[in-house]
Amino acid sequence: MTQRNVAIAIQDSPFARKLAAFVRLSQSDLSVMSEIYQRRRRFSVGVDMIHQGQSGQSAFVLASGWACSYKILPGGTRQIVDFQIPGDFLGLRSVLFRTADHNVEPITPVQASEVTQHDLLDAFARTPRLATAVLWAASRDEAMVVEHLVDLGRRSAAERMAHFMLEMGARLRLVGIGDRTGYACPLSQYLLADALGLSAVHVNRVLRELRESGLLTFQKGRVVFDDHDALVELAGFDRAYLDHDGPLLI
Amino acid sequence: MTQRNVAIAIQDSPFARKLAAFVRLSQSDLSVMSEIYQRRRRFSVGVDMIHQGQSGQSAFVLASGWACSYKILPGGTRQIVDFQIPGDFLGLRSVLFRTADHNVEPITPVQASEVTQHDLLDAFARTPRLATAVLWAASRDEAMVVEHLVDLGRRSAAERMAHFMLEMGARLRLVGIGDRTGYACPLSQYLLADALGLSAVHVNRVLRELRESGLLTFQKGRVVFDDHDALVELAGFDRAYLDHDGPLLI
Repeated sequence: MTQRNVAIAIQDSPFARKLAAFVRLSQSDLSVMSEIYQRRRRFSVGVDMIHQGQSGQSAFVLASGWACSYKILPGGTRQIVDFQIPGDFLGLRSVLFRTADHNVEPITPVQASEVTQHDLLDAFARTPRLATAVLWAASRDEAMVVEHLVDLGRRSAAERMAHFMLEMGARLRLVGIGDRTGYACPLSQYLLADALGLSAVHVNRVLRELRESGLLTFQKGRVVFDDHDALVELAGFDRAYLDHDGPLLI
Repeated sequence: MTQRNVAIAIQDSPFARKLAAFVRLSQSDLSVMSEIYQRRRRFSVGVDMIHQGQSGQSAFVLASGWACSYKILPGGTRQIVDFQIPGDFLGLRSVLFRTADHNVEPITPVQASEVTQHDLLDAFARTPRLATAVLWAASRDEAMVVEHLVDLGRRSAAERMAHFMLEMGARLRLVGIGDRTGYACPLSQYLLADALGLSAVHVNRVLRELRESGLLTFQKGRVVFDDHDALVELAGFDRAYLDHDGPLLI
């Protein structure tokens, strides 16, 4: 494959679409990215890709499928921190920190590209713009965790669910999956419960209420926004923290 | 001041101490940092340094004093996301994002160095190691927000308070403030309440319980660890997410 062809292939990937939302990627940015992105590994559902407490772990860029990051507390309870979709980094902290401070597990079959600490530092040395884009992506991830903090601290169960479904929709659209009407969603009610700090029974009830109010339907693995505007209003959803309005850095 | 003297001065700053926990800083890293760090601005208590929803905001590196970052929800309630101490970035997202997605306000009189988007990109182009160190610092901040998420989702009021006080202690020690016996802490019970998702009355009760159990005393602006080990045990405090064991990147 010529340099030019590689760049065209990577350009359509979720990874490039996501970073291109912040930085207009040059040919050399794209070729550094495609070197990393072309190495693929496959992972099965339920087998940890990253283990809390282990050292020398790699990070991954997710090429296809969904994963979730979670923490196990000393008492054995689990808190889901976030879900990852194509284009997202998995375990960026586990490559920067001495030991991984969380687990990452595939929810569906996953293809991902491994990124070692050496890859990351080498890429940054070659293209500082890419470093900035990765910093932006990490900052966006932090912004999402902040929103989940606000969820648990200050939002009602229905507001949390609405906010979460809108956020996933916006993230997926950015990488070319789903549209304003909805998206395919592999999450079980148990996973939603663990992420939103609700019981599975409560998740079921909230989803029924949202459906009966004509706002949102989640059935047969598909989220449908029945009334997108009313949902945004209910959730107090402000897209600013996702910042998807085209590259800031030209 | 000669190049060498500047580097020596910056080396003792909280900013350099913090980043040096991840990257062994070279002479040229230090001189890029000291250019940024020497420009100082002063801010008064209660006057926002960064405003949610505004665009083109700078970031700051905190040189002295404490600040807090918070979000105002559409209904007007406030959620404190984190507190910032010397050496921390304030509003890194507000320089990377189109609009700031949170507020930052001094809790004590503050001295801080302004960092524009241009400064950041320029520094990254000159020293990719510094970019990696900033990415690490941003990742550590995310790890702390994750812990606060776990606080709200899964920890009791006493566990939250213990975890929070230990985390602040570890962060302060890293930048040369306080020691294993305790630290000066300017936080009111109202600020603690807003950060931990408790009422001020509840904060008062939890602090009394911790004091009466011989674990921790917070009085007259000073936190004293009466029994550090028992506190670590109660909180399930695992320092891995702060990663303070010396530079990973040599």
